[in-house]
Amino acid sequence: MVKICFSQIDVEPSHPDLNVERMLQAIDEAKQNNTDIIIFPEMCIPGYLLGDTWEQTAFLKDCLSYGEDIIAASQDICIIFGNIAVDWDKKNTDGRVRKYNALYTAYNGKLIKPEKSPYPFVIKTLFPNYREFDDSRYFFSLQSLATELKLNLNDILSPVKVNIKGQELNLGCILCEDGWSDDYAFAPIDILCQNYKLDMLINISASPYTFGKNNKRHRVFAKQAKDNNIPLIYVNNIGIQNNGKTIYTFDGSSTVYDENGNIIATCPAYKAQNNYINLLGNDEYTPLPIPQNDDISNIYQALHYGIKKFLKNIRMQKVIIGISGGIDSAVASALYADILGAENITLINMPSKFNSATTKGLSSQLAHNLGCNYAIVPIQEVVDFTVNQFENTDITHLATNDVHKVQVSSFVKENIQARDRSARILAGMAASISGGFTCNANKAETTVGYSTLYGDQSGFLAGLADLWKYQVYELAHYLNEHVYKREVIPQGIIDIVPSAELSSEQDVDAGKGDPIKYPYHDYLFRAFVESWQKVTPEDILLWYSEKTLEEHIGCKAGLVDKYFATAKDFICDLERWWNLFTGMAVAKRIQAPPILAISRRAYGFDHRESQNGPYYTKAYKQLKAKLLGDNL
Amino acid sequence: MVKICFSQIDVEPSHPDLNVERMLQAIDEAKQNNTDIIIFPEMCIPGYLLGDTWEQTAFLKDCLSYGEDIIAASQDICIIFGNIAVDWDKKNTDGRVRKYNALYTAYNGKLIKPEKSPYPFVIKTLFPNYREFDDSRYFFSLQSLATELKLNLNDILSPVKVNIKGQELNLGCILCEDGWSDDYAFAPIDILCQNYKLDMLINISASPYTFGKNNKRHRVFAKQAKDNNIPLIYVNNIGIQNNGKTIYTFDGSSTVYDENGNIIATCPAYKAQNNYINLLGNDEYTPLPIPQNDDISNIYQALHYGIKKFLKNIRMQKVIIGISGGIDSAVASALYADILGAENITLINMPSKFNSATTKGLSSQLAHNLGCNYAIVPIQEVVDFTVNQFENTDITHLATNDVHKVQVSSFVKENIQARDRSARILAGMAASISGGFTCNANKAETTVGYSTLYGDQSGFLAGLADLWKYQVYELAHYLNEHVYKREVIPQGIIDIVPSAELSSEQDVDAGKGDPIKYPYHDYLFRAFVESWQKVTPEDILLWYSEKTLEEHIGCKAGLVDKYFATAKDFICDLERWWNLFTGMAVAKRIQAPPILAISRRAYGFDHRESQNGPYYTKAYKQLKAKLLGDNL
Repeated sequence: MVKICFSQIDVEPSHPDLNVERMLQAIDEAKQNNTDIIIFPEMCIPGYLLGDTWEQTAFLKDCLSYGEDIIAASQDICIIFGNIAVDWDKKNTDGRVRKYNALYTAYNGKLIKPEKSPYPFVIKTLFPNYREFDDSRYFFSLQSLATELKLNLNDILSPVKVNIKGQELNLGCILCEDGWSDDYAFAPIDILCQNYKLDMLINISASPYTFGKNNKRHRVFAKQAKDNNIPLIYVNNIGIQNNGKTIYTFDGSSTVYDENGNIIATCPAYKAQNNYINLLGNDEYTPLPIPQNDDISNIYQALHYGIKKFLKNIRMQKVIIGISGGIDSAVASALYADILGAENITLINMPSKFNSATTKGLSSQLAHNLGCNYAIVPIQEVVDFTVNQFENTDITHLATNDVHKVQVSSFVKENIQARDRSARILAGMAASISGGFTCNANKAETTVGYSTLYGDQSGFLAGLADLWKYQVYELAHYLNEHVYKREVIPQGIIDIVPSAELSSEQDVDAGKGDPIKYPYHDYLFRAFVESWQKVTPEDILLWYSEKTLEEHIGCKAGLVDKYFATAKDFICDLERWWNLFTGMAVAKRIQAPPILAISRRAYGFDHRESQNGPYYTKAYKQLKAKLLGDNL
Repeated sequence: MVKICFSQIDVEPSHPDLNVERMLQAIDEAKQNNTDIIIFPEMCIPGYLLGDTWEQTAFLKDCLSYGEDIIAASQDICIIFGNIAVDWDKKNTDGRVRKYNALYTAYNGKLIKPEKSPYPFVIKTLFPNYREFDDSRYFFSLQSLATELKLNLNDILSPVKVNIKGQELNLGCILCEDGWSDDYAFAPIDILCQNYKLDMLINISASPYTFGKNNKRHRVFAKQAKDNNIPLIYVNNIGIQNNGKTIYTFDGSSTVYDENGNIIATCPAYKAQNNYINLLGNDEYTPLPIPQNDDISNIYQALHYGIKKFLKNIRMQKVIIGISGGIDSAVASALYADILGAENITLINMPSKFNSATTKGLSSQLAHNLGCNYAIVPIQEVVDFTVNQFENTDITHLATNDVHKVQVSSFVKENIQARDRSARILAGMAASISGGFTCNANKAETTVGYSTLYGDQSGFLAGLADLWKYQVYELAHYLNEHVYKREVIPQGIIDIVPSAELSSEQDVDAGKGDPIKYPYHDYLFRAFVESWQKVTPEDILLWYSEKTLEEHIGCKAGLVDKYFATAKDFICDLERWWNLFTGMAVAKRIQAPPILAISRRAYGFDHRESQNGPYYTKAYKQLKAKLLGDNL
């Protein structure tokens, strides 16, 4: 019988001092519990998403030095942990010093070298090269090392052998992506299991949360345990890490699978915990159900955890939210009040002459329901002053001394209002209370840049920007029903037509609002950005012509005919949004606040994009011409 | 004798239609000139920095279809060009369809397959995985293919054989990074040259401009030609490409080296050109000098080309620049007036009560010298109104009905001024004339976030943000002396102390200004961001203690003693800026405008960073304690 502690710690990226302090505490506790082996997550000393901090020599040395502290703490306990490894005599392919993403095994003050490894640690074999991952930018893989040494993986991959109470154990140790090998030429687990009789598999990970991802993980990892008829221990960290533009929560959800692929122990999501299990003995465990992870409660949990932790990291205790009487700002208000306490939230309604009594009333009602701080700061005077000032300013062309003036169009006036609200009032008020103000954009708006730069698109964090509008509504219901258990978000806000109320064309009382028809466009935009092979107008138009569009993008049947009377209308709408998505919206996203990732492809440095302008393929143009009856 | 055209075309990223049109024109011209072989740059059909556009199936098919057009145009001419290649039956390691960065050779309507290649094209072997490059995210390398096929590179790398006028030629064809193999386990050129008798080397590239990089390229490529005693043709594109946050110019500078490593033909930087050369015959060429590429004239050229092209791409014809009477906005004004013509530039001076008569006068003088449009739009009224409005707004805590008000500090007032200028006036005025406004930040300010978000840090482009302050001054002199050949930037602007003039503490007439001491901090900050292995406070403090700091960072001798009387002063300054650089400045850069890259590490998506807060290593803390005489 081997007593194992899987230690789901909270990893602070770029802060080895804090991480090692937490690890030493966990080791102490495990020792007191007579643990044989304690297992920590991948890169638990340095953190994982660090950007070019990996290029700092001093930081690398510091991580190695902290690694020594952990090794020194391994008297009478076997410690498995992730850290950077450096070979100062070799180079990465960028010419910088050789770095490995490594799994160390320390026991009685010494490292245990896997039999065939050239180093006293296990090296990560497979590097994820999609979404937010940048392993191949910084680290050298075991696969590359094998190539360099003119070996194949069979010659270099081997288990970690430890002797626990006189029993020799063969531990098949891998790192994160090594367990997700379906699309690679080699599967580290298969190589290990074919060449050795293993006692268990250990996967240490730094695996960010994605809505629904754990379902797949359970399928894949349970199968690995079952196929090889040995237990598998998956240890993941909690915390948040970011690549600047995009912030990821790490949900932990560490899990032990038995040799039949049943879940026999788990750590809860987003909770630091030492959990214990006895393996290879006579202990019997009842299989646990697969934790559900694909409904709005999981999104709520990820948002709550991620925002709370982000606020803590940037030491922000007071938050200002501009509320319009619309759904996005209402959901943001309820969420932040839930996170920080209503007393730390100031809601500000900033009416112009275009704001209806309806939305002003709903704003006030929301603030009262939540018990936040509340203020009304009107914008009309400064907006009028600004338009006046502009239109009365002499602009002199000094080469000719000609004097001219500008005319401010109604479209420009809309954006002046939005910037007045955010850059003048919210930014100034937030600074005055030493706090920040939020960006309440949803993913549909963010997709097409339906927002004003330095206006409603600004803020310290865009917490809801990875949620489609339908998910914002789901979250509103969830907050009312399950979090507050009363109607804090007034039903009127849920029912009202979404509108920016920046002109008389957007009069909510007349039922006028956003040009985005969310029940259809949410799904169209989702196809653009979240599809596995990304969808473009060519695909959309083909599906439209085949009458399979709704099925393909997943929106309600009948919507296409409802919104578009003719092919021309349809194409006009499609090109409008595609032009924005790949045009002005890219420019806006470049200057957008950081986004908290929820979906399988968030904006920022997850969905990577260049400001190259819209493009239509040959095939699209041909199909369009055919549908419109034009000759090309 | 073989007549070769090296075609340095302007590549528009994500616009295969435009690129193929240009290629077909170049091919026509080359045919009329009886050319045997025409060579185009790497990825000249799709472009290179496209972000996740590579995940669009329709786009991939479109590029292949345009590739067919080029193949069809190869009657009586051998065409070498770069394009994406797709194997629809295989997968990349991310599970998406297999993509290669490929060099195609078409002749008489058919592709020529390199003898040992499994495909009718050459596959890029080495992938740059630093700075802006993302090859390993999207493409599958020849090295990975060899591993997958259980071959080594000797078994799969082979030349392209073409028969020109009855003469069989062995062309050693490689792509970009394949020629920069110093840090890799394999050198494609060596493998080719060891296994085959080649007639020439051809390197097709998509190589972005970096200040000083061409010097290194000449050394490396000349040696390759000389060592192997064959000519080498390097073909690079011009144009601009971006990864969203960072914009790169491609300077072309295509070059032919003879078998002695001499330069015998070049295309000029940033100019689309078909250039011709006869090789393997009796033509004699006089060696050309190595074009100099490391003084301010090259930076000017890159900025001029890059900004002009960016403006064209986003169809911006009118630009507004807020001018303060300081050096950054003055240089921006002179540069944009040079690019777009003074008649398309509107300079706006936006004084508050803190702006001196001196800088107001200098602003006016600058505008007159350039002959731009000029306006004065004061901010004091709205700033006062805003402070007043804030301080008189009732904020009600609705849980208790307590009412409180905010106090606006002088620091907050500074930022209110900055946001009023940019978000209210410049953004509004720019929209009113259907133009954009510039961000004039330099790299020193950008490093430590000495700027206001939604204030002076905003704009459509930060054109000077990869220039240190000393380079901004060099550029000022260059513009006066070599571009305008008269003093358009007043000497007073060059001489005045840099200051934000946001409070009475920043009174230029009293010689007060920025807290950044540029002659020292420019170099300190450069060490943080541009050093090969990045420098941190640990390195800086060590060098300080050894009295080698000035030598290490390259600033003038004597400055450290001049600025810092004691070690405590020095450490206090160091930590102040490090805290900002890795703290608030990261948050600001996340929302900064796109930056035009000049240096070997620009902000944006070149220097990649996470918002993780400042960190000090163990060794730093120990050294600090020692220097301060503290006990740890």
